Amino acid sequence: MKIALAQLNYHIGNFKANEKKIVNAIEEAKAKQAELVVFAELSICGYPPRDFLQFDDFIAHCENSIEEIAQHCNGIAAIVGAPSKNPNKKGKPLYNSAYFLAEQKVQSVHHKQLLPTYDIFDEYRYFEPAGEVNCIQYKGKKIALTICEDLWNIEGEYLYQKSPMKQLKSLGADFMVNIAASPFHKNQTEERDRVFAWNTKAFDLPLYYVNHIGAQTELIFDGGTAYYDSKGKKCTELNSFEEGLLFLDSEEDLKEVKPKPASSIEKIEKALILGVRDYFKKLNFKTATLGLSGGIDSALTLAIAVKALGAERVIPIMMPSQFSSDHSITDSIALCNNLGCKYHEIAIKPIYDSFEKQLEPLFKDTAFNVAEENIQSRIRGALVMAHTNKFGTILLNTSNKSELAVGYGTLYGDMAGGLSVIGDLYKTEVYELSEYLNRDEEIIPTNILTKEPSAELRPNQKDSDSLPDYEILDKILYDYIENEMSPQQISKKGYNEELLAKILRLVNLNEYKRHQAPPILRVSKKAFGMGRRMPIVGKYLI
Amino acid sequence: MKIALAQLNYHIGNFKANEKKIVNAIEEAKAKQAELVVFAELSICGYPPRDFLQFDDFIAHCENSIEEIAQHCNGIAAIVGAPSKNPNKKGKPLYNSAYFLAEQKVQSVHHKQLLPTYDIFDEYRYFEPAGEVNCIQYKGKKIALTICEDLWNIEGEYLYQKSPMKQLKSLGADFMVNIAASPFHKNQTEERDRVFAWNTKAFDLPLYYVNHIGAQTELIFDGGTAYYDSKGKKCTELNSFEEGLLFLDSEEDLKEVKPKPASSIEKIEKALILGVRDYFKKLNFKTATLGLSGGIDSALTLAIAVKALGAERVIPIMMPSQFSSDHSITDSIALCNNLGCKYHEIAIKPIYDSFEKQLEPLFKDTAFNVAEENIQSRIRGALVMAHTNKFGTILLNTSNKSELAVGYGTLYGDMAGGLSVIGDLYKTEVYELSEYLNRDEEIIPTNILTKEPSAELRPNQKDSDSLPDYEILDKILYDYIENEMSPQQISKKGYNEELLAKILRLVNLNEYKRHQAPPILRVSKKAFGMGRRMPIVGKYLI
Repeated sequence: MKIALAQLNYHIGNFKANEKKIVNAIEEAKAKQAELVVFAELSICGYPPRDFLQFDDFIAHCENSIEEIAQHCNGIAAIVGAPSKNPNKKGKPLYNSAYFLAEQKVQSVHHKQLLPTYDIFDEYRYFEPAGEVNCIQYKGKKIALTICEDLWNIEGEYLYQKSPMKQLKSLGADFMVNIAASPFHKNQTEERDRVFAWNTKAFDLPLYYVNHIGAQTELIFDGGTAYYDSKGKKCTELNSFEEGLLFLDSEEDLKEVKPKPASSIEKIEKALILGVRDYFKKLNFKTATLGLSGGIDSALTLAIAVKALGAERVIPIMMPSQFSSDHSITDSIALCNNLGCKYHEIAIKPIYDSFEKQLEPLFKDTAFNVAEENIQSRIRGALVMAHTNKFGTILLNTSNKSELAVGYGTLYGDMAGGLSVIGDLYKTEVYELSEYLNRDEEIIPTNILTKEPSAELRPNQKDSDSLPDYEILDKILYDYIENEMSPQQISKKGYNEELLAKILRLVNLNEYKRHQAPPILRVSKKAFGMGRRMPIVGKYLI
Repeated sequence: MKIALAQLNYHIGNFKANEKKIVNAIEEAKAKQAELVVFAELSICGYPPRDFLQFDDFIAHCENSIEEIAQHCNGIAAIVGAPSKNPNKKGKPLYNSAYFLAEQKVQSVHHKQLLPTYDIFDEYRYFEPAGEVNCIQYKGKKIALTICEDLWNIEGEYLYQKSPMKQLKSLGADFMVNIAASPFHKNQTEERDRVFAWNTKAFDLPLYYVNHIGAQTELIFDGGTAYYDSKGKKCTELNSFEEGLLFLDSEEDLKEVKPKPASSIEKIEKALILGVRDYFKKLNFKTATLGLSGGIDSALTLAIAVKALGAERVIPIMMPSQFSSDHSITDSIALCNNLGCKYHEIAIKPIYDSFEKQLEPLFKDTAFNVAEENIQSRIRGALVMAHTNKFGTILLNTSNKSELAVGYGTLYGDMAGGLSVIGDLYKTEVYELSEYLNRDEEIIPTNILTKEPSAELRPNQKDSDSLPDYEILDKILYDYIENEMSPQQISKKGYNEELLAKILRLVNLNEYKRHQAPPILRVSKKAFGMGRRMPIVGKYLI
């Protein structure tokens, strides 16, 4: 059977655009004599549709799109992901389903049985798990169709009581098709290969796998659409982070290929570029504004934004204060010149002085402290936001994960922005990616890479005045945030107990700041945001 | 059997404090010869513990507390809510459990079967549903112990396939005990009475019900701890929004009482006061800062804050601009005098002028627009935040639900704050509550109640320049947000189609602003925040 796998970039709630993409792929597949074309999970409405699923009208749009698409399924069959209504009086009102379309009709609807409800996933919020599952019968073959998580309940990691594949295998399935909405993180390719190797071997069946590409706010989908043989070997695969149609037919197509292994830093770069690009495209914004401090975080953010949008669509603004070093300007200018960006410069001292003057009656006899530091950061926030409001641009946030973790940032100041580009990169990863960006030529000036990190909000300030070395800090943060280790477990690694307690306390204490942070492009397994849900009012470890 | 029901205010992750409260209640119950004392769902760790449940260390703390508490259960039994580990290799790693403690030991552990995963609830994120359920056998009685949602799967609204009470009834239960973590909304008392009436009648058993009181960030728990007879009548009940121990023994205790029915506005006032008070208490903050504009939103927020914290712990700051009306100051001063609050006044014009001057090169030849409006709001945001940073206070946000819905507010300006006090009240409800606050004496000056709403960010601005009358706007918003109606359904009510489309578009478009809003004290069935999860990048209705 000649099968086409469609790896497309959908847009949540943009039914017309999604429908058109799907129909175009069906027509192309038909033209190339494919007999079946497969689309991703919830491709009709985009993923994750979140609480829009609770609107009857939204579901009606999904149903209409399925009807429209079915009209194009003559001489070809299609598998398309969409929600479907639960006709029973018990349970959640919807299923997360795959429609099998052929002969211009819905032939059958297959529901997802295992509903991921952890990390960034909320599927049991909306969907009833499938009861019975059945194979699709098509052209003399029995197709074991499953939806994403249905294949992720594997030996040693059984999160669910049921196994839909066990049932489908017992019904005599000939091959597996899995349609997914599986977001990227830097180790996700390896996880997928491991999980699918287990499935193909356990059930002795080959697997056709189709995933989304594209970004939906913080979630980035890399694709990974591929064919795995029944021995767990990944054969032909589409390029990651790109749309494409993969045709699989002859033995030739299915011979093992070793996809060029991408390093995790290479994948992160691609993911962030796609993340920025799709945010602007799908929200119909043209231009980004960003505050350029002379430090590495804003430098890296600018470089990624320029790769995503082009230099003419990114406007960096430098806002030096009386505490800014000379190199903060010269380095920033060098960076802009390397990237071909026009920039603006606005001195904040006169504004700062007017704040000081107006606050004098309140602040008299108090010492310069975090209040004055934050005023500077908030003046900058107000200036870049004024630029966005005046010219209809969007502010890119430049915070990194280490500072978001410990609250080393000013709410409504440098924490402002519509999208956080590098907020899922620890400071040490910020350096790593910056150096990777410089692989062919110097984009980020060496001085930015080598100077000591500083917020420059008071004289001679250094990050290291209040934080440990990032090499140490990031290791502790990783153990606490990614590995969810206890203070006792982490302290066994030999850290200073007091330092460790202070850091973990800061992480918990600053939940209130992160609550108001912009959405953060997710590239790790545990990003701040929708995948990490912590109480603000709480006492644990504080 | 003499039973004590303990309605207590727990603190998430504050194991020592929660344990002490529970132990004190056990000792008091013992002293009064009670044979059983019942505590709420997850009382050990507070509710909702959210992703802290994923930390082994957090669970170990829960287990330790249970062991400690068990030591006090001699001559009395206790039912205490806490997570417990799932010993099986399949499924989620935890159960949401109730421990039955007697003779200084854990006698049995009973798991929740129905796991709410909708609105503000995420329980399937953490917990495995119970398989078999069993009655507690104690003093010759069979107790049907269930946990919150276990009783909410009622006729006509079956969200789950199973019914734990059906099973417990068949085992010969003598009475029901339900321990809950059921947050307040303004119609929740009526919902509870309806649901428990159904259960008591369906299973022909009386019910002892125990709930939390207290606020955990945005969620407010009102209590409602009560006894319902087997005919569905609510008998003695504890006062809402207060801690207490209810002793139930003789026929006398169980005769029907008609609790003084509270109006929903009365409940909202109590809920908001408790919400503010607990936020400060549990985060160990003493003093609130708040920007006072002369409008009704900040006036109401101030009045509630003073009721919650006392006048000496709330510092209003007036920040007039060149566009502020005279009455914005005189009305604010009158309000502060009524409340006994000291206030500060800081003129923002000099700061605004310095912004204008520094932005002149960028903004030359552009007309005054939303950029200049927002600069004023962000100056105010920076000033009140500077006050909080200097004096270690917390900023209270003064936004209402109507403006949060349509994005009529400035991010990092008037949308700033640690906690949104009235962000779940539509503007019409803001008026209603303000008038209710004035029931005995004029607290909020009449002129604030009667003047036309205005943001005063440009000359002669009125809310009605860009928004329809709040009477109309709020009805549309309620149908869309609370009732999740489609544009087609709402338009049948006779609204102007263009106006309706504009409003719904604004609601969806401004998801990005609400994403960065402070946590909002929840008093309705559908508040912005953790209970309403919408995509930011999306096209639906835009």
